[in-house]
Formats: sequence, structure tokens, C-alpha cells
Amino acid sequence: MSKEKINKQNALNAIRKKLIGKTLNYKEIYSIMDEIAKQRLGQVLTTYFAASGYSQGFTNQELYFLTKAMIETGEKLHFKGIVADKHSIGGVPGNRTTLIVVPIVAAAGFLIPKSSSRAITTSGTADDMEILAPVVLSKERILQIVEKVNACIVWGGNFNIAPADDIIINVEKELMFESFDKIIISIMSKKIAFGSTHVVIDIPYGNTLKVEHLKDAEILKTKFEYIAKKFNIKIKVIIHRTDQPVGRGIGPVLETKDALMVLEQAPDRPFDLEVRSITLAGNLLELCLKDSSEKLKKHVKDIYGDCTGWATKLLKEGIALNKMKEIISEQGGDPNIKSSQLNPGKHVFEVKAERNCLIREINSKNLTLLARALGAPGQKKSGVYLNKKEGEKIEKDDTICTLYSENMYNLTEGKKTIKEFPVFGFNE
Amino acid sequence: MSKEKINKQNALNAIRKKLIGKTLNYKEIYSIMDEIAKQRLGQVLTTYFAASGYSQGFTNQELYFLTKAMIETGEKLHFKGIVADKHSIGGVPGNRTTLIVVPIVAAAGFLIPKSSSRAITTSGTADDMEILAPVVLSKERILQIVEKVNACIVWGGNFNIAPADDIIINVEKELMFESFDKIIISIMSKKIAFGSTHVVIDIPYGNTLKVEHLKDAEILKTKFEYIAKKFNIKIKVIIHRTDQPVGRGIGPVLETKDALMVLEQAPDRPFDLEVRSITLAGNLLELCLKDSSEKLKKHVKDIYGDCTGWATKLLKEGIALNKMKEIISEQGGDPNIKSSQLNPGKHVFEVKAERNCLIREINSKNLTLLARALGAPGQKKSGVYLNKKEGEKIEKDDTICTLYSENMYNLTEGKKTIKEFPVFGFNE
Repeated sequence: MSKEKINKQNALNAIRKKLIGKTLNYKEIYSIMDEIAKQRLGQVLTTYFAASGYSQGFTNQELYFLTKAMIETGEKLHFKGIVADKHSIGGVPGNRTTLIVVPIVAAAGFLIPKSSSRAITTSGTADDMEILAPVVLSKERILQIVEKVNACIVWGGNFNIAPADDIIINVEKELMFESFDKIIISIMSKKIAFGSTHVVIDIPYGNTLKVEHLKDAEILKTKFEYIAKKFNIKIKVIIHRTDQPVGRGIGPVLETKDALMVLEQAPDRPFDLEVRSITLAGNLLELCLKDSSEKLKKHVKDIYGDCTGWATKLLKEGIALNKMKEIISEQGGDPNIKSSQLNPGKHVFEVKAERNCLIREINSKNLTLLARALGAPGQKKSGVYLNKKEGEKIEKDDTICTLYSENMYNLTEGKKTIKEFPVFGFNE
Repeated sequence: MSKEKINKQNALNAIRKKLIGKTLNYKEIYSIMDEIAKQRLGQVLTTYFAASGYSQGFTNQELYFLTKAMIETGEKLHFKGIVADKHSIGGVPGNRTTLIVVPIVAAAGFLIPKSSSRAITTSGTADDMEILAPVVLSKERILQIVEKVNACIVWGGNFNIAPADDIIINVEKELMFESFDKIIISIMSKKIAFGSTHVVIDIPYGNTLKVEHLKDAEILKTKFEYIAKKFNIKIKVIIHRTDQPVGRGIGPVLETKDALMVLEQAPDRPFDLEVRSITLAGNLLELCLKDSSEKLKKHVKDIYGDCTGWATKLLKEGIALNKMKEIISEQGGDPNIKSSQLNPGKHVFEVKAERNCLIREINSKNLTLLARALGAPGQKKSGVYLNKKEGEKIEKDDTICTLYSENMYNLTEGKKTIKEFPVFGFNE
């Protein structure tokens, strides 16, 4: 039997072992990751592996082994000194803080090479950034860009960084569901392979999000901290309850427009997105500052008070916007793009209020379904604009939200979907 | 959202629910089976479903619901009166009792329309029967044949009998592993949809078989009895320990040759296969006789003593062989075929003993791997002939087994495989 066949046999045995609830050692886990990374396992067996972690999950040590194997079966990037990164766990529609946090942190002088994923649900940061500039870049080009402007926002699946992850994500997409353990492995392997040393993880939880309960968020936090420690990474995990989407636009173009408006400090920018971004940037700067020179620490304290003040200043004074323009330019986009130039699809439908009432809640899962029905993320200009949000009063015939699509077929699908899966809950 | 999309969404939700270890109701299970049966679920989601039962298994009620849904989402066959059937749980190489039991029971006067599967591992009964006659027949033709000669041996996957089962088996094939629960569902749904009323289930267990431990065999037995009762089917489950393959040939042609030799009562026939077949046929006849006329009961008692005697007589006097010829002829094969005409592949390699010793054990799993490496079941003439079996003494340079393949490449693969995964354990 050839070496390749033996490897595959070992991976197969390991998958079967895990499926019946047993614990795997590093050799077994490596054999699975290696087969996946080399694209030899095939879709069915990859799915069996993806499924094997759902019911009983993985031990902490298995989580570590999986993350390690996912890194080791791909390439790694190396940068000098502090390398910052942030990640928000998905499920919150419109949560495009990355496009704001990255330029703030880069403007503060830290390296923040950001690799993002394509959407598992409605839109990923990579899908959004692609509106502004190419996100599929070579390893060499990324190293050049980061050296020049401190940051990049690229798609992580282009070259061989934790290659098994994207292959597994492909089978998870069909299920529209990622296990908590897989979320950790996926995030941490990408971060570590990308050379990150200081990482902020944002875990929003709430009724219709990926993480529903505080208890689950706390379990995730502990596991993230465990993995970070194993790899000697500084980490801060922020847990907060969220009941509604961030910003008003859902779908690549609409989300990117929201983020640009915050960077431009446009008067009608979404303030919730701004506040969330400053909070995350402040926390990430604080984590990085702890390992910086005493001189820098004193400078920040004297001038800005604290890191939140620092982040706020960089945003308010347009320094973050200029940094974003540098990043866009280096990645090959047009640095002079304005939020006002980003327009959603031509096929439009306004959802009107049937009576006077108050929006009690927005169902994020159904909002995601709606955006998908409209064509997002494949159709970049398709999506939903929330004219009204939670807690807002509405009168009969007010527009509650606007559906946009690149074509008529998807607009019709969207109209049907919002009837079947209501997005808004009302109080009389 | 269209009705089809809602159905798919329901199935998706049910799969996710089961993956995280929750129990499903009939509506949820039906939605999954319906999507699979209509070939709308796709390979990845079907695999997630197949995987969902591995770790925590299903409750008895879920097992019943799964079996029922698998039947209801396909066609059913109806026959009058007693309809016999038998099934041996796989993993025992060469266990081709079906080709012997079916003609015995049919010769006794009971209906036994047998639907068999293709191989999940080395060879299925359908693969073997195909050596003798076509096994892909229409529903109408099957009804005609059974009416005329009491029996048939066909492939169950041709028409719409429990269609979800074959689709699930296709994803399980890649894993080379079926869960115990899935075995029960798969067997019982096919039997019930095929109109069976009296069923014998044979559960061999042993170190290198599908069922390794007596405890597991007993759990399976209880579950089989539960499902049978729910559907008002008479069942007898036979558990027995087995340490080695049945017969000497492994692979479609070699196994079929073994079975024909028993029917022909050839002097050098494999006696273990004969004894096993008579035991199963005897048990099945006994189950059927219980619900037969008092006249028949008395006749059997007076002439044959008991049902084992009855089965033995039908085999020894060539009545079963004649019945098999009728079946072969009706299915479109050549009824005059002789075992001596069945010859394995031209590429041959004899494995010789390196010293005098005794065969302590045969590893069924490795024997299966070996037969696959040689090209079985795709190559019907490929396989292994066991010149020596467990407990037999061998002298240096004796042929222990013979590898056959239809081509040189697979013969070489086979030679490598037997070195890596030894089939025989020796005592000095």
C-alpha cells in the first residue's frame, strides 16, 4: 500500500474514532488536517470530520492539536514585533467594525495584517473590502503592503494559510452552521499563521445570534484564552449582549457604505457602528501598548488619557480615514472613493408599516435569510437597509426597511422571504 | 419562499438539531428522508445527517420513525400470505448464505422475494447474484417471478423501495463504516417495504467483524425486535460468535462459486457455509411454519422431524439447486451454469508459508482491505481464495491463500496490502 493510501487510511480511522465520541491524539488529528489541506480527503469525508465535533465537541487538548495541525499543514507569515488583530464572532448582521478598527490601529503605529473570510452567511469582511479594492493578493505583496502602511485587509483563502480551514468552511456553508469549537480553531489558526501576537476577540451574544447565551460566550472565552496561552499569544476576549444589527446596511455594498461613512465622519453615519469600533480599537491598542515602550505608554497617557481616547482621536481627526485610503491604494483600489458613490441594487422594494407601533426586536437570523434571498453576498449590491431599528417608533406607511437586489427574481424571493420569516417584532 | 425551500429548510434545521444531540420527532425525520429520497439534499448535507447518528445514536422511537419515514418516502411491494426473508449482518467475508437459503425456503413453498444491496465493503449478495443472472429488474417483473417460482434475488436499489437508504449508503461507503442504528434502519425498511412478514436476522460477532462484542449484538437484537413489533413483523434474531470467514472464496466470482458448490453438493464444497446456511434456513422455516396450517406442521414433523431436517433434505436432494435454477432462469440468466465454470481473474499470486506453523486467526477487516486492493467488488473476478483456514496446520512453502485479480496493477496493490495489513496470525 502506498504512503498516500496509508495516510488516507489513518485519517479515515481517526474520523471514525471521533465520530463515535473518542478523543484523538496529535498524530491522528494531523493525518486528517494533512489529507484535507492536500485536497485528498474529498467532500464526503471532510463533512464526516466536520460533523464529528458537533455533538460532544473536542477536549481543550484536541482544540490545541487541531489549531496546531491546521497551522502546520499550511504556510506561515512572519512580521517583526507586535502584530495586532481583531475578530468579531459572526451572526450580527452589518457588524463591519474591521474596516474601521484596522485603519485606526495601523494609524496608531501597530502592524495589523488582517486576513478575513468570505461569508459563511450574508457577507464576510473580505466580501465587503472587495468593494473598495482587490482582496486576493500574493504573500509577497501582503508583506510589502504591511511594511509600507502597517496594514492590509485581504482574503485569507488565497494562498496556503491554514488551507484546511477554508475547505472545511465550504462544507459547513451548506449546513449554515459552525460549531463553537470549529469557530475557535478557525479563527485562531488563521491569526497565528498570519503572525498575530496581540488579539482582541469580540463575542456578541443574543437571542438570534450565533452565540445565544452568556454561558456559551463564557465557555468560548475560556477556550480562546487556553489556545492563546498555548501559542504564547496575548488575547483579550470581550463579551457583550447585542439585540440588533450594527449599522443600517446588510449586504456587501450597504455594509461598506456604513463603514466608510464612519471613517468619513459623515453627519448621518451609524453611531452604533462607530461606538462599537472605537471600543474594539481601544481594547486592541491597550493590549498592544502593554508590550510597548515606556515612552509610548507615557505619550498616550499624557495626550489621549487612555487608549479609547487615542482611538477616538485617530478616527475623529480623519487620520484613520487617510490610513484606510493608503490601504485601499496599496491593494490596488481607488483611494478617493466616497461613501456617497456606493449605491445598492436597482431593484428596490420598501417595506411599509401597517399601523403605528414600536419595533420591539429584530431577528438577526431571519434578516440573514432575507439578505441571502435578495442575492447577497454573491450579488454585492443586494441587501437590506434598515430604515428603522429597535426601539424606534413608526407610524402607518413609514418605510421600515428597504430591500435592494441586483435582479428582479431575487427581489421577489426577498419579498416572499420576509413574509415567511419576519424580521421585525412589533409592540402596539 | 417556495414550498420546496421550506421543506429543505425544515430538513436542515432537523439535521442541525440532531447533530448537537437532540431528539427528533416524526415530522422532522420525515422532512430529512423526503429531501434525501427526492434527491434534493445533496451529498454534503446527506453526510451530515449520516454522521449525526454516530455519537449518541437514536432513541428507539427515532429508530422507528426513521424506518417508517424511509419506507413511506418510497414504493412498497405487496404479496399475499407469509413472506419470508433473512439477513446476515455484514463484515464476515464470504458469508454468501443468501444464495443457498433463498432456494431452500422457496423450495419449501414459502415466498421469499430477496432484495440485496451492493457491497459496502467487498461484495454484496447483489454483486454475487449478478454473476449468475441480471439483478436489476422492474417491480412488475419481480412480482411475476415471485408468483411463478416463489423467490427472486435482486438489487433493491433499482426502483423506488426505501430510496433514501441507498443514497445514505453511498456516503457511508466512503467512510467504510455504518452505525449500528443505521444498519437496523437500512435492513428493516428494505424488508418491510418489500412486504416481508417473517424475518430471520443473523448477527455474527467477533474481533474483526462489524459487530465485535456480544453486548453490542444483544443491543442490536433488542432494537431489531422493537422495530419488528412496531410493524407487526415476526422476527428471530440469531447471535453467534465467528472467528473466521465463511467458505474459502472472497470476492464476487469466488463467493458465488462457493455457494453453487454447496447447492450442487460438490465433494469439495465449503462445509462451514453449508452448515451456516442450513441453520439459517431451518430457523426461517420454523418461523414461517408457526403461522402455517396444522396440516403442514404435521407433515414437516412426520417426514423431516424438524425444520432443520426439512432444510437439510431440500438441499441434499438437489431440490434447492433446481429451485435456484428456476430463479436464475426467470431473472434472465443461464440455469445450466456450473460452479466449475466460474473462474477468478487471470493475474494470480500464491502466498506461501515461510515456515511450519498453525493458523491462529484470520483478520476479517484486513481480508476485506486485501480483496478491495485486488479490485473487488468492481472487478467481479478479483478476490482471495483461502487455501488454508483457522486452525489448519501448514508446512513451509504451502500455499496459504491465492490472490486473484483482473489486472496486473491491482495484483501488485494486493501484494503490497497483505504485507502492510496481515490477514493471518500464526502460532509456531
